[in-house]
Amino acid sequence: MSPWDYGWDKMTPEFLVLKKPSDALKEFLESIPPIKLEKSTIPTEKAIGRVAAEPIISPESSPAFRRSTVDGYAVSSKDTHGSSEGLPTYLKIIGEIRMGERNHQNPGRGEAVMIYTGGMIPTGCDAVIMVENTQISRENEIEVNKPVSHGENILTEGEDLSIGEVIITGGKLIRAAEIGGLLAVGIDQVMVFNRPRVGILSSGDELVPPSKKPNPGQVRDINSSILAVMVEKYGGIPVLYEVMPDDAEIMKERIINAFTECDSLVITAGSSASTRDFTSRIIQQLGKPGILSHGINIKPGKPTILAICEGKPVIGLPGNPVSAFVIATLFVIPMLKAICGASKQFQNSPGKARINVNLASVAGREDYWPVTFTTKNGELIAEPIYFKSNLIFTLVKADGLAIIPLDANGVEAGEFIDILPVE
Amino acid sequence: MSPWDYGWDKMTPEFLVLKKPSDALKEFLESIPPIKLEKSTIPTEKAIGRVAAEPIISPESSPAFRRSTVDGYAVSSKDTHGSSEGLPTYLKIIGEIRMGERNHQNPGRGEAVMIYTGGMIPTGCDAVIMVENTQISRENEIEVNKPVSHGENILTEGEDLSIGEVIITGGKLIRAAEIGGLLAVGIDQVMVFNRPRVGILSSGDELVPPSKKPNPGQVRDINSSILAVMVEKYGGIPVLYEVMPDDAEIMKERIINAFTECDSLVITAGSSASTRDFTSRIIQQLGKPGILSHGINIKPGKPTILAICEGKPVIGLPGNPVSAFVIATLFVIPMLKAICGASKQFQNSPGKARINVNLASVAGREDYWPVTFTTKNGELIAEPIYFKSNLIFTLVKADGLAIIPLDANGVEAGEFIDILPVE
Repeated sequence: MSPWDYGWDKMTPEFLVLKKPSDALKEFLESIPPIKLEKSTIPTEKAIGRVAAEPIISPESSPAFRRSTVDGYAVSSKDTHGSSEGLPTYLKIIGEIRMGERNHQNPGRGEAVMIYTGGMIPTGCDAVIMVENTQISRENEIEVNKPVSHGENILTEGEDLSIGEVIITGGKLIRAAEIGGLLAVGIDQVMVFNRPRVGILSSGDELVPPSKKPNPGQVRDINSSILAVMVEKYGGIPVLYEVMPDDAEIMKERIINAFTECDSLVITAGSSASTRDFTSRIIQQLGKPGILSHGINIKPGKPTILAICEGKPVIGLPGNPVSAFVIATLFVIPMLKAICGASKQFQNSPGKARINVNLASVAGREDYWPVTFTTKNGELIAEPIYFKSNLIFTLVKADGLAIIPLDANGVEAGEFIDILPVE
Repeated sequence: MSPWDYGWDKMTPEFLVLKKPSDALKEFLESIPPIKLEKSTIPTEKAIGRVAAEPIISPESSPAFRRSTVDGYAVSSKDTHGSSEGLPTYLKIIGEIRMGERNHQNPGRGEAVMIYTGGMIPTGCDAVIMVENTQISRENEIEVNKPVSHGENILTEGEDLSIGEVIITGGKLIRAAEIGGLLAVGIDQVMVFNRPRVGILSSGDELVPPSKKPNPGQVRDINSSILAVMVEKYGGIPVLYEVMPDDAEIMKERIINAFTECDSLVITAGSSASTRDFTSRIIQQLGKPGILSHGINIKPGKPTILAICEGKPVIGLPGNPVSAFVIATLFVIPMLKAICGASKQFQNSPGKARINVNLASVAGREDYWPVTFTTKNGELIAEPIYFKSNLIFTLVKADGLAIIPLDANGVEAGEFIDILPVE
């Protein structure tokens, strides 16, 4: 091989158009069509992070009976009309409504019954007097200083949810709250979308699997394992493929095979310019519309590829671990949220920290700097980690990534800046 | 039973001192001593979210050999001294260093060898010329327009990590980055702390397990299931106990039993004032120092109990699901992070959204309002959900919780306010 074979004579600039990271992400996410995922029925208690595959209708009302919202006395509200501190009403306490039991004591005119928060309102009562607005005047008698109106401190049957009402729509992400809501009305099984399969491929003649001892010149492929962990954390099923050699034919065959087996692909390109070239050409051949972005104004991570092929998102990551990590955080995680079947998902918004030194950058490029955090007077302080190499141990030391915005020449010591956590 | 038995005649104010939420949290977290957790050895690839139980020493250097950081030509730097655009140096290309192979081609005086990013530097070379700073002058010859200095574009052996260096300290939270770092040097097993056991108990005569059809007056216990999901998500092992009746003796026996079996307890009190009373008295008897906070200036969630008993954190939650949920988000999640064995953990910082209407509050109290989100011009807009009842479906509808700060009388439409996601 010689430099000509690789096109090194006409290699600069490598990318004709570098996109703004936010534009590239927006265009990419908006271009992802709804992914057709299979469905499964699973126990509600295990459904955290999954997405409902169909609307779920309530078989019950909630509350299922009229309940008190306070501790106090269930009464007929008209018995309290006109009560004041100067002219209190006196009510006879005829008993107590025990929690969890249907009441059989129905207060008559001038009578009241003790009730607790959540207790079942007796048939003849239409309000509850808060205990704070009463005084005990003598045994089994209270003094009411304030009238209650019809329905006061009562939750009516079905007020929170009626029978037949949609509890959650299809496409709803199931959080702890949804699990609580479903169990509240007795729904202990739920139909969810299967998690999307995300194929993970790495190429590089120098790569060996992490379990193998590398020979001189070889290194362990860690990007695949890092990506698998992230895919799993964000709701996908990672499908790990064997490391690919830097060979256009083998890469093409393996990538096409993975593409047919998965709902999305994340490909980490080999280090050499030639392999990066192969990767983009193969991605372009996977289907229409193909590559949307190739080259993003970001450091690290410039040679990123974002593509949609036959409806499946495909991301090409640079080979060095820090670049791959940053791009996975910025593009793979939002992509995972986009393909899990949820109709409404909010991307994580960055946190804030005060940077403790000046950091230079180049206007027109978004920079991500590994930083460590300390807290001082309750504030998060970010301290940059200086690094020559783009190697993984820089990230192991880092608590977060400081973002130097696209239009800035840098950030000044003491500025509040956006930060992302290191996954 | 009569009102006297419950102390309803002297019930207001229920709490003598209401603590500021931030003060209560700080005091609580600072009072949690290091929890003694058992240790296990697990595969590195499965260790996400776990905490290293001992320092991990690298058995290898990284990089394990001198590597190029660019695509270009490996040379002896002194061969390029004095090169300029006007007076370039010409070097003969004697071959290519293939990725993943030990190099056997050693360029001599006036010679260079092609190399790719990550390639192994030949013994006799001490720098790499970037391809961008060269031109191909004729077959197998390049023109160098700029000198390179000794070590330029080379990563030396062990520059990122030396043999015997501590990769991660004991107590380090294992993220995707740590998994990558450990695998990079061949460590595929890691000793971690076992996850802390968190006992979950609910009391209430009205409660039935979610699997059971409630009779009139009964409701399903959903707090236990919601808490179990949150405990699991944040790194604990949820240990669910049978629902307790509102009976001081039975509650005491069950709580003491759970306390001996777990590293921490979360107890959801029954709805009645009497049960809340039992709960606090039992918690106080579990051990020193006992209850740190009982009553917090927060809505919902005022009757929260925060305690440390014999070194184990114990949290008492109000019974209504929204209060329990808010308090779990604000106190149980930070507690879980505190007891998992990690030496350095940052609590989630709230996000920001623009509130779309005025919301009233009371100065001196921190309010959490369920809100839905929409996005407008890339900004998150929060719209309050108005609710009479404190029931779970309010949270199912909510995307987040808007925080109205302690010292504010409310927030105004258009203000940027802090928000927490609904778990």
